[in-house]
Amino acid sequence: MNELILTLNAGSSSIKFALYEIVDDAPTVRVKGQVEGIGTAPHFVAKDTQGRLLAESYWEPGPAGAGGGQGHARAFKRIWGWLADAAGGGSILAVGHRVGHGGETYAEPVLVDAQVLEVLTGLIPLVPLHQPNNLAAIRAVAADHPDLPQVACFDTGFHRGRAKVTEQLGLPRALLARGVKRYGFHGLSYEYIAGRLHELAPEVAQGRVVVAHLGSGASMTAMVGGRSVDTTMSFSALDGLPMGTRCGVLDAGVILYLMREDGLGVAELEDLLYKRSGLLGLSGVSNDLRDLHASEDPAAAEAIDYFCYRIGQTLGALCAAGGGLDALVFTAGVGENDAEIRARVCRDAAWLGIRLDDAANQRRGPRISPVGATPSVWVIPTDEEAMIARHTLRVVRGR
Amino acid sequence: MNELILTLNAGSSSIKFALYEIVDDAPTVRVKGQVEGIGTAPHFVAKDTQGRLLAESYWEPGPAGAGGGQGHARAFKRIWGWLADAAGGGSILAVGHRVGHGGETYAEPVLVDAQVLEVLTGLIPLVPLHQPNNLAAIRAVAADHPDLPQVACFDTGFHRGRAKVTEQLGLPRALLARGVKRYGFHGLSYEYIAGRLHELAPEVAQGRVVVAHLGSGASMTAMVGGRSVDTTMSFSALDGLPMGTRCGVLDAGVILYLMREDGLGVAELEDLLYKRSGLLGLSGVSNDLRDLHASEDPAAAEAIDYFCYRIGQTLGALCAAGGGLDALVFTAGVGENDAEIRARVCRDAAWLGIRLDDAANQRRGPRISPVGATPSVWVIPTDEEAMIARHTLRVVRGR
Repeated sequence: MNELILTLNAGSSSIKFALYEIVDDAPTVRVKGQVEGIGTAPHFVAKDTQGRLLAESYWEPGPAGAGGGQGHARAFKRIWGWLADAAGGGSILAVGHRVGHGGETYAEPVLVDAQVLEVLTGLIPLVPLHQPNNLAAIRAVAADHPDLPQVACFDTGFHRGRAKVTEQLGLPRALLARGVKRYGFHGLSYEYIAGRLHELAPEVAQGRVVVAHLGSGASMTAMVGGRSVDTTMSFSALDGLPMGTRCGVLDAGVILYLMREDGLGVAELEDLLYKRSGLLGLSGVSNDLRDLHASEDPAAAEAIDYFCYRIGQTLGALCAAGGGLDALVFTAGVGENDAEIRARVCRDAAWLGIRLDDAANQRRGPRISPVGATPSVWVIPTDEEAMIARHTLRVVRGR
Repeated sequence: MNELILTLNAGSSSIKFALYEIVDDAPTVRVKGQVEGIGTAPHFVAKDTQGRLLAESYWEPGPAGAGGGQGHARAFKRIWGWLADAAGGGSILAVGHRVGHGGETYAEPVLVDAQVLEVLTGLIPLVPLHQPNNLAAIRAVAADHPDLPQVACFDTGFHRGRAKVTEQLGLPRALLARGVKRYGFHGLSYEYIAGRLHELAPEVAQGRVVVAHLGSGASMTAMVGGRSVDTTMSFSALDGLPMGTRCGVLDAGVILYLMREDGLGVAELEDLLYKRSGLLGLSGVSNDLRDLHASEDPAAAEAIDYFCYRIGQTLGALCAAGGGLDALVFTAGVGENDAEIRARVCRDAAWLGIRLDDAANQRRGPRISPVGATPSVWVIPTDEEAMIARHTLRVVRGR
């Protein structure tokens, strides 16, 4: 086997990984897998590119609340140990990480050294729930393999360079100067989609495109000429669309009310807004749209209504950012797999001239609008890992 | 003089009033005025319908922090005392109040009695900064004139009856059931505008109309057939457009950050988001667009950019609510008087087919789009007091 690149995407209780073989100077995926249940019931799975199970294992989580990234460190050892067997003689050239926040310092992917790690650690207050996991994964790799190059790829990077007006919030300038601004996330996904759309329909990709990344986290981005011009996740990953368990756009007055009337503190608000809101909170049924579609509870239907309505409103708002609309792209779990949500969003967007080819929608496109219709509508599977692998290869090759 | 109706619009440090004479069964304005500086440096002014000064006086604010509406009670006595002289033999039939919140109970204006007052007092947690002033004014009138009919006209009323999906937020259902929902405000203004647009262009008023109420408080509303279908102020008057000193839309994550990093409590956040944000916060110069236009500080220009950008985004979002756009209406202080803001908003909305007649824009319309252009664009002065007077007359006449 040729040289390999390992990508890691570390969440609070999981690490997703993928192994890429460099073939003709391009990363080609060979294995995808993950450790789930870090801290509670760790569970390792690896699959080949056809989705066939290659390996699976379980182990004890270790002392409760050990913290300090020990769960992530153990998870990484499992991944690495299995890869050492599975890599079949190939050598891992570098590890690429999805990192939540590059702040004002890093837009482009960067080779991690002590100074980079210090800067990224300093950004933890901006993304307290995500950045520590990413950095724990980087430290776990460095502890065992200090000479292995690691590349940090930022979820904020693709959104850098937007007009200042789209980065601001209606707050005192001193807060903006401190970094309280609309960064945007899901950048690796949007960058991948921009590239794929360019392959599928280069003339469309040059125009005004809105991409709906609808997963358990959800956001939408307006692009012009393949570059982000505005996006719905802003300072935090709470803003914008309602998500599986996150609130999306919220009147600040609601938080003041909950502080004053219910005495909620920051930890309770964080729990409420990140983990108990969104589709789960609205439906009282599930954070998963498949469950909501299947449910007969009227609240489940209301949650779906709200999700679709907000997507429609956001589409209108993002058309203003781009000055119109040439194409709409659906991606990520829901965007790729939920034909009903796509159909509803397109129906509600008829005022923008959007039309749907029902059969194409059922078979997931890639184009799901009638031939020749403008704006065109697309379903494009995203692949953040592929984007990380490409960036990582580029950085370690020094290009 | 015929029978009279007095309208009161009580803020935290001011009471605006207007006196209407009932002529041919319709309220006709005779006097407008206000007491400003309640609690600090009270100042009474009354003007006739040509804006000529009729009376002016100053007095001591009384013991600092006397609270309990004493400042409002004294202000009302001044207003009433002067009116008793000025009314020239006419008798005041009723007093109509602008009241911030009617909650789920009151959509239509209502004659105030003890039970109504109790319900309205119970709504104070929803609008802690506004409702107490309105109720203080009602109590001040009742204390001196217990038999005088008083009518409460609700700023939320016009927005009642919207689709449920537009009233929801992405929060647990239990909060919605408790009344944490998107009520909307500036309803008396929107209702007045809907009526005026119907007079000016009845066929346009039947269509899909977005009204931009741009004052020191600012919001936008989508109407279809003269009824509110969605609006930007939601649970509180903080949400939606950036305002003179209020933040407008804000990522909930920013509040969590300020709580965690700066240790801000609810009173400090309220002060920040209601009084030090918006145009004032962004510019560091002023909350007044006239000052910002005149300023050479680049931050002033940035604040204007942000204001216009948010109006443009909101217009796109509200087009989704109405399923397109037949007309855009500007109203309130900025909307009626700031031709440059109107021109910028219209230029940014070219993607919606909006075109501007520059000369008509300079002379404030009423129509400021070229003849025959669709969507049409309008400038219509609002008059919340006239709306209150009409409602009050209707309620006391029992119609």
